[in-house]
Amino acid sequence: MQKNKPLILITNDDGYQATGIQSLTESVLGLGEVVVFAPDGPRSGMSSAITSVTPIRYRLLERSEEKDLTIYACTGTPVDCIKLAICEVLTRKPDIVISGINHGTNASICVMYSGTMGATIEGCIWGIPSVGFSLTNHSANADFSESKKIARLITQRVMSEGLPKGVCLNVNIPDVERVKGLKVCRQTKGQWIKEFRRSTDGAGREIFWLTGEFRNDEPDATDSDEWALAQGFASIVPTRIDMTDYQLLAQIGSWEQTL
Amino acid sequence: MQKNKPLILITNDDGYQATGIQSLTESVLGLGEVVVFAPDGPRSGMSSAITSVTPIRYRLLERSEEKDLTIYACTGTPVDCIKLAICEVLTRKPDIVISGINHGTNASICVMYSGTMGATIEGCIWGIPSVGFSLTNHSANADFSESKKIARLITQRVMSEGLPKGVCLNVNIPDVERVKGLKVCRQTKGQWIKEFRRSTDGAGREIFWLTGEFRNDEPDATDSDEWALAQGFASIVPTRIDMTDYQLLAQIGSWEQTL
Repeated sequence: MQKNKPLILITNDDGYQATGIQSLTESVLGLGEVVVFAPDGPRSGMSSAITSVTPIRYRLLERSEEKDLTIYACTGTPVDCIKLAICEVLTRKPDIVISGINHGTNASICVMYSGTMGATIEGCIWGIPSVGFSLTNHSANADFSESKKIARLITQRVMSEGLPKGVCLNVNIPDVERVKGLKVCRQTKGQWIKEFRRSTDGAGREIFWLTGEFRNDEPDATDSDEWALAQGFASIVPTRIDMTDYQLLAQIGSWEQTL
Repeated sequence: MQKNKPLILITNDDGYQATGIQSLTESVLGLGEVVVFAPDGPRSGMSSAITSVTPIRYRLLERSEEKDLTIYACTGTPVDCIKLAICEVLTRKPDIVISGINHGTNASICVMYSGTMGATIEGCIWGIPSVGFSLTNHSANADFSESKKIARLITQRVMSEGLPKGVCLNVNIPDVERVKGLKVCRQTKGQWIKEFRRSTDGAGREIFWLTGEFRNDEPDATDSDEWALAQGFASIVPTRIDMTDYQLLAQIGSWEQTL
């Protein structure tokens, strides 16, 4: 009977202790066999980084037959977690990978830096329907109650309908008391600017802290994820792993030459 | 006079000491004012990771008026290097960012994990024409002589023609004595499999080393980067920072709902 149950693999980039991943786990209990395989501490901003120069380890933290829940902690990055779980720990391929709920937005260009989305993209590379969830509130004690409802809703939908090969979902949830609804969006054009705070260390030497401020380059684009979030909607951006720009590809054929 | 010279910003993920970045630097000397701002050691597989929980530092290593070359080392990731150079070190915006030459391939799905391409993508996010170069040979003493010619050729072309906003180039060079030519390609579908080597540490505890083998899911696709490389051509993949999948976006409009 166990074998017919869908297998749900959960990870994040804030570490297994974070409220966000605990909320995500609670939100999907009962939908299948749930395995949490998450970093043993914060790995924010790790993007799709992998650990190749040091070995990685994992340990079992909890196994509950009643909840059909197993929790592991891993020393690696979010992407390492997905790879190690699939290759070495799980006895079957997960039916879905869900990542988050991140403490902080991963909308617009943040998709590039996000460990939450790195793990989601990795699930997608393995041919598994994968969804990353993020709440636009960085604080450790953010309120995830609206996010939990949305995570369960979208997880159920993806489990029943699947996703095309090579595409995962980047879901962001606004930090509001009542989310208005779900909007399907594109990635907003924007970037982080004024990135550093200069400071000095104990010896008086100059150091730099990455900080920065997000600049939205198209605040009026009603089809963008930042717009949806600003209006109180959760944004769903279908996110692809083929980064080829086919438009430029068609234009620079003349660059081909023999040498 | 100095101000009219193009400013070329160079970084990599193997660290400033690597033969690959020294080769890239040599290949473009004379094309403008050259600034190398690179990690102070290996940062392979760092993707677009950023350093947010610890401060970063940099130091000047070399300044040559004769070569119009300045070299800095930085404690951060490849993306940190680009951000810090642009925001805090350079007095004007670079005209081009070039990254590499990586010791090892960044074709196909490797674009996701690559620190070389992380830096390239970051240059692109800043609106600067950006190119990542990689040689399909991991070894520290690989022969970069063909790569240098190609790097100079493509750098000159991009400096004169520019690139559209939001698109950078992922250039891979085959490890052959004579590269046949340049091919404009798309990213090959494929993934890394059999990823880990199990081992034990000094105390006999289980550890995992990331290793793996690349599986090409379309070895006969003549428009793919892996195919071009296998035929002895350097591959040029136009790579976009908008990861939205517009096809799926158009299909899942029915997922929108009020809550």
